[in-house]
Amino acid sequence: MNRLLLLLTFAALLADAQPAMLDDAVRLKDAALDGMTAFPMLEELLAGGHRFSGSEGYERAVIWAEKAMSKAGADSVWLQPVTVPRWVRGARERSVMTLSGKRHPLAVRALGGSVGTGPAGVTGRVIEVRSLEEAAALGPRAKGAVIFYNRAFDRTKVNTFEAYGGAVDQRGRGAIEAAKVGAAAVLVRSMTNAADDVPHTGAMRYHDSVPKIPAAAIGAASAERLSRALRSGTEVSVTLTMDCRTLPDVESHSVIGEIRGTERPDEVVLLGAHLDSWDLGTGAHDDGSGVVQCIDVLSLYRRLGMRPKRTVRVVLFANEENGLRGARAYAAFAERSPQRHIAAIETDAGGFAPRGFTTDADSVRFRRLMEAMPLLDVVNAGSLRPGSGGADVDQIRTPGIVHIGLRPEDQRYFDHHHADTDTLGAVHPRELQLGSAALAILAWYIAESDL
Amino acid sequence: MNRLLLLLTFAALLADAQPAMLDDAVRLKDAALDGMTAFPMLEELLAGGHRFSGSEGYERAVIWAEKAMSKAGADSVWLQPVTVPRWVRGARERSVMTLSGKRHPLAVRALGGSVGTGPAGVTGRVIEVRSLEEAAALGPRAKGAVIFYNRAFDRTKVNTFEAYGGAVDQRGRGAIEAAKVGAAAVLVRSMTNAADDVPHTGAMRYHDSVPKIPAAAIGAASAERLSRALRSGTEVSVTLTMDCRTLPDVESHSVIGEIRGTERPDEVVLLGAHLDSWDLGTGAHDDGSGVVQCIDVLSLYRRLGMRPKRTVRVVLFANEENGLRGARAYAAFAERSPQRHIAAIETDAGGFAPRGFTTDADSVRFRRLMEAMPLLDVVNAGSLRPGSGGADVDQIRTPGIVHIGLRPEDQRYFDHHHADTDTLGAVHPRELQLGSAALAILAWYIAESDL
Repeated sequence: MNRLLLLLTFAALLADAQPAMLDDAVRLKDAALDGMTAFPMLEELLAGGHRFSGSEGYERAVIWAEKAMSKAGADSVWLQPVTVPRWVRGARERSVMTLSGKRHPLAVRALGGSVGTGPAGVTGRVIEVRSLEEAAALGPRAKGAVIFYNRAFDRTKVNTFEAYGGAVDQRGRGAIEAAKVGAAAVLVRSMTNAADDVPHTGAMRYHDSVPKIPAAAIGAASAERLSRALRSGTEVSVTLTMDCRTLPDVESHSVIGEIRGTERPDEVVLLGAHLDSWDLGTGAHDDGSGVVQCIDVLSLYRRLGMRPKRTVRVVLFANEENGLRGARAYAAFAERSPQRHIAAIETDAGGFAPRGFTTDADSVRFRRLMEAMPLLDVVNAGSLRPGSGGADVDQIRTPGIVHIGLRPEDQRYFDHHHADTDTLGAVHPRELQLGSAALAILAWYIAESDL
Repeated sequence: MNRLLLLLTFAALLADAQPAMLDDAVRLKDAALDGMTAFPMLEELLAGGHRFSGSEGYERAVIWAEKAMSKAGADSVWLQPVTVPRWVRGARERSVMTLSGKRHPLAVRALGGSVGTGPAGVTGRVIEVRSLEEAAALGPRAKGAVIFYNRAFDRTKVNTFEAYGGAVDQRGRGAIEAAKVGAAAVLVRSMTNAADDVPHTGAMRYHDSVPKIPAAAIGAASAERLSRALRSGTEVSVTLTMDCRTLPDVESHSVIGEIRGTERPDEVVLLGAHLDSWDLGTGAHDDGSGVVQCIDVLSLYRRLGMRPKRTVRVVLFANEENGLRGARAYAAFAERSPQRHIAAIETDAGGFAPRGFTTDADSVRFRRLMEAMPLLDVVNAGSLRPGSGGADVDQIRTPGIVHIGLRPEDQRYFDHHHADTDTLGAVHPRELQLGSAALAILAWYIAESDL
């Protein structure tokens, strides 16, 4: 057996069983690429600035999303209340390395949730480590020091999300492990394969049992400079000054809209993205792209007069980046709901050209989803692999739900992730639009099938 | 049968038959992504400026490529003489639209091979057409006019090369058809899906039986402006002024290097790219990327101590863009050569993330190549479809040769193709490098197999 035979088998299957479905897939692709509506929507959304939880920008985005879903033709649009954390980056955010009496600026940005340093800043000699374990093993030597986590992405990983997964513990738990051994602050090498000096922020955690110490992301080039300085054998100290702080929680909302199913309205095919972003850049790929793709799917069905048998619901989650509270609120709602969630498809991996999907479906339903892949080949997104749906939709754990994640080409994603460069110019209109089409085809297949 | 079963079947096949091959593929991938040597090579190559046939830049590139192949570890490097055309873009290259007495500049660039307009320029009223047939049907009305070919890419085509193929006859034969009906000049809408105003040059032809009239590419935004002006009903005239001209042919060279096969040195697996570029931008994707990928393959084998059984030969063709003379010279050499060409793999579709390959292999050898696709999945390039190898390698028509083309993600390719924006910044280091790895894996598979 080989792939050629498989293709022929699929072609035969399609010709036999799904000619109407293939027609639908082609119509969706044609309408998507002819209309090119996703990118102008993204431009509108991003014009409001970043959408960090608790910010005015986020609240503007809620109003925008409500209108955009109505305009796209949702039967109903509603807001789901969510209490979100509010952390604010202060005016000052800088770091200076002192080496043999000379001062050298380093590119840094506070990690999300970090405490500030106080007006005088925090100064300490720098100790470089490559892992949480190395930090823990420093023992009393670490007292008063600035721990510098400098384990880069494993660049031999083709999948950049895997490389991220292999490095991000430094950002998430670095401050906890450093505080345990008495460190004064931490610098964490930015989570990226890029060689530039753009710092990438992201979520970090504290633990109540140890002191909260300031934590900042450092640009890759600055990390290399700092590491070189340390290798020279001279003592290197760093002063970190940050005014960031956590304010009281804020009442906010996720935005939900749907096209009601004609035959099985109580069976829900969910499309999810998160409406919030970090406070650097404008969250163009993360996850403005996902937001407009989901809305675009509703708009495509409307423009083509396609009424799904099952309900297709778009959930634009609040607070994915620093709390997942929107997803948890929706998951609690789903538990109580008499409606059945068939599948939840997330798009939160960038607005790049789609390649396929991952899913946690069991083997029977994996095969059923495989049967949809020839339809997805219409937009070059016909790959299906085992994996998760995504941070938000995976929170929904109602019986029988299948989680699915859109998987775009990922080489450029972490160049922009959580950074000043995640802006409109990094998104390609056709790549973004092909993602809409892929989601529209898969959601349609599930809405029309007995998966 | 479904894809899941297929994957399992492949996994079994691999485990059974090709464990060493899979190890080799992983080693090549690791060395490629760890070394990241392709992008620095591209930076070096592009520092010499564009590499248009007959230019000093091309001759600098020949010297660079000779050295780079030696440095990469080729057993031998040689130059193959090729006589190439020499066309030069003049100092002046502009177009002005006159509408109700007002003058509006249009973004234009001469098409490659166009005659100039003479010092006074050419002025004519504009007639917009969407096809060669429409131009031919104008009859005597076209006398003295500027024919404006304005059929855009079919944007519903997912594959941008197909969209290009559906529009490029306007550029190639537009001047011939316009001259037949007495037109004074032609403007051709740029071959791109982008909405910006960057003109894209490219090859055009004349026919000895009709006058040679000036031909220019016009930016997409300028094309839209011009079309709107024409729809207003007012007469619109355009003045085109270009100093371009054709000079006598020049002696030049293709550059060839190889690692000699250990067991079957007279059987050649060819890797091809073209060393020349257009004279706009620096030909970063077209085809600087292909050039450095081919050289990088030799370097990867050397670094890993992998000696192929068959000879792996890199041919960097002269003059692909406006003559194909390098490919024809090599094809003539291959005809005379006692060596047998097993396969010729071309990389000339941009330095973007590889998705797979196309080939004209017959069904038996298509299946053999299919067996290599699980190896290519290591770098996410495991798709194989029927198709051509590429403009250069397809010229080689020795008995039994299989033509293969690398197919990268293509949504961004025609944003930069033949234009000022085809420069280093448009290339992503990891995407480029994955292309090297894909070529190295496939060439290795063929060099070690009995395909």
